[in-house]
Amino acid sequence: MRTLTVDLGDRSYPIYIGHGIREQKALFDDAIQGKQVMIVTNTTVAPLYLDAMVAMLSCDYKVDTCILPDGEVYKTLETYGLIMTALLNAKHNRTTTVIALGGGVVGDMAGFAAATYQRGVPFIQVPTTLLSQVDSSVGGKTGVNHPLGKNMIGAFYQPQAVIIDTQTLSTLPPRELSAGMAEVIKYGLICDAPFFDWLEQEMSDLMALENEKISDAIYRSCLAKAKVVAQDEREGGIRAILNLGHTFGHAIETEMGYGNWLHGEAVAAGSMLAIDLSWRMGNVTEQDVSRSLALFQAAGLPVLPPESMTIDSFIERMALDKKVLDGSLRLVLLASLGDAMVTSDFPMSDFTASLSDALEASAQANLA
Amino acid sequence: MRTLTVDLGDRSYPIYIGHGIREQKALFDDAIQGKQVMIVTNTTVAPLYLDAMVAMLSCDYKVDTCILPDGEVYKTLETYGLIMTALLNAKHNRTTTVIALGGGVVGDMAGFAAATYQRGVPFIQVPTTLLSQVDSSVGGKTGVNHPLGKNMIGAFYQPQAVIIDTQTLSTLPPRELSAGMAEVIKYGLICDAPFFDWLEQEMSDLMALENEKISDAIYRSCLAKAKVVAQDEREGGIRAILNLGHTFGHAIETEMGYGNWLHGEAVAAGSMLAIDLSWRMGNVTEQDVSRSLALFQAAGLPVLPPESMTIDSFIERMALDKKVLDGSLRLVLLASLGDAMVTSDFPMSDFTASLSDALEASAQANLA
Repeated sequence: MRTLTVDLGDRSYPIYIGHGIREQKALFDDAIQGKQVMIVTNTTVAPLYLDAMVAMLSCDYKVDTCILPDGEVYKTLETYGLIMTALLNAKHNRTTTVIALGGGVVGDMAGFAAATYQRGVPFIQVPTTLLSQVDSSVGGKTGVNHPLGKNMIGAFYQPQAVIIDTQTLSTLPPRELSAGMAEVIKYGLICDAPFFDWLEQEMSDLMALENEKISDAIYRSCLAKAKVVAQDEREGGIRAILNLGHTFGHAIETEMGYGNWLHGEAVAAGSMLAIDLSWRMGNVTEQDVSRSLALFQAAGLPVLPPESMTIDSFIERMALDKKVLDGSLRLVLLASLGDAMVTSDFPMSDFTASLSDALEASAQANLA
Repeated sequence: MRTLTVDLGDRSYPIYIGHGIREQKALFDDAIQGKQVMIVTNTTVAPLYLDAMVAMLSCDYKVDTCILPDGEVYKTLETYGLIMTALLNAKHNRTTTVIALGGGVVGDMAGFAAATYQRGVPFIQVPTTLLSQVDSSVGGKTGVNHPLGKNMIGAFYQPQAVIIDTQTLSTLPPRELSAGMAEVIKYGLICDAPFFDWLEQEMSDLMALENEKISDAIYRSCLAKAKVVAQDEREGGIRAILNLGHTFGHAIETEMGYGNWLHGEAVAAGSMLAIDLSWRMGNVTEQDVSRSLALFQAAGLPVLPPESMTIDSFIERMALDKKVLDGSLRLVLLASLGDAMVTSDFPMSDFTASLSDALEASAQANLA
């Protein structure tokens, strides 16, 4: 088992990574503070892992469960309300511990529920998808979507612990494994060039879930994220680099309807737009662009936006993104391969050229 | 104008108290950080004070408004969703400032919206009722009700400033003035015996809104609350003494349906139950009980619970109160007049005797 700490003063917490560690009760005992536990999961994960967890914890705690419908379309205030009702129906008090057992949607919603149930109760993340293991379960972002924008409602709220069991990846659909790999590649792109090189060599073993290698990839991803989050918990500055490809990506996700493009897929296509723009500005080489493209493709990810979108639909959607500060669009771009920066200083002509070329390539790919 | 500071490190903020100060634009300028402002108010307050505030701020900011239906029954996740939609429709970004213009319900909901819009934006409280001026606008509690319990959904989130204009009390219905006075009296009971004495002398002037005296009463109330909150922001300990009468009171409010008993009315009747129990335990004298009773009555407040309630309905409702920790009922009681304590160490026979005597007195009062 690998362990690392997210260093946030009195809100610091450990991340454990290992094969089968969801069955190590001591990890939970350390993080649970009261006598009540509410496990929040969904209809897909529940049949796989819920019974065993309930059985393990029931000897010491009053354990209740809340099983949500599965999918990003259900990441709403209404579904969040279901968790609140479950907590109240089972008379959970403010020393209860919420356990999020599932992917990013479950983690974000259960985390927001924990952040706001009786103004805040402890919670534990047990992420079961690669995406949530390397991204959403670390850093304290919680929340739900609004019909007018993704993750527009939420809170910064840190868990007591993150317990990452790599064994759960064996039940993950291939498309979701790819989507998670988009964020792993992102860490190489934004802050760790040697990791990017390593990923190029190991991608086929990683996609085959070779045990030690996937643990390494998760550990290195979490370490990168933990380092950034420790510097900037509430995303006032440097933390924004974690959003490489996300402003473009959110536009794709919102335009296409939540859940039709997976988050990681939109991030991959969005990252390629950001890398293309970085190339036009002379920050990265043509070879950097083609290496990035090849790596995303090796992970089974899309590298072009949906052809049904237009430059205008991108701009309209991006204007509402959280990264827009006082009206000026700020983007995460590469200063070089392995080094990201946040800037609103880019030529608008390059920005539209990146979009227009990518949309044209997408249309041609669909014709072919 | 009187000014005091709630001392919470980097979350410290000023409270301004004065006649007509809602028109002092400089107070707002100091607290607003971006270029966008969303004023949240309700259908009762809007016709009185909204236009002037919009006019005052529009010269420097993009000002939008969100007018909610008035009343505790609308303090729900659904109404909160309306604020989120208004912010998104007007494309507010994460540097927007939310201004709560209204009573406690507006303040709690606008505060929770500010706490959770894009994971947190600045906000300013402009409380227009006595209750919100002395209680809910100070201390950072925000949230909404759930059908199964009051204030069960929410967050601790501190404002940038609280601007208390005592002039707005002139438009307050007498019943709401009384309800606010319940919390003023509470500060005397829990931590300031000389203030209690002063209130006994000045209550008729206070109910007549004598200008200097009402400002003094608000200042002294806010000072008491600020001192307690600074010691215990998240209600881990001492802060709970602010809830004198609230556990009984919440039971009354929930049982009778939100809004039928005003919060302050329920707190008055609930405080008398707590004081009666404190007397049975030998902590306060019979004279203390009758002085408290007379003071609440001089402020036009109920001192008995609704006769339709029973001991069982109290216990059932109180078991779900947030003050219940791991199953044991903790109450705020008086150690002496002017000194409160939180304890779960009280004889159950005294507890039921207080309830049973009060319910019987209530039934007899209704017969008479």
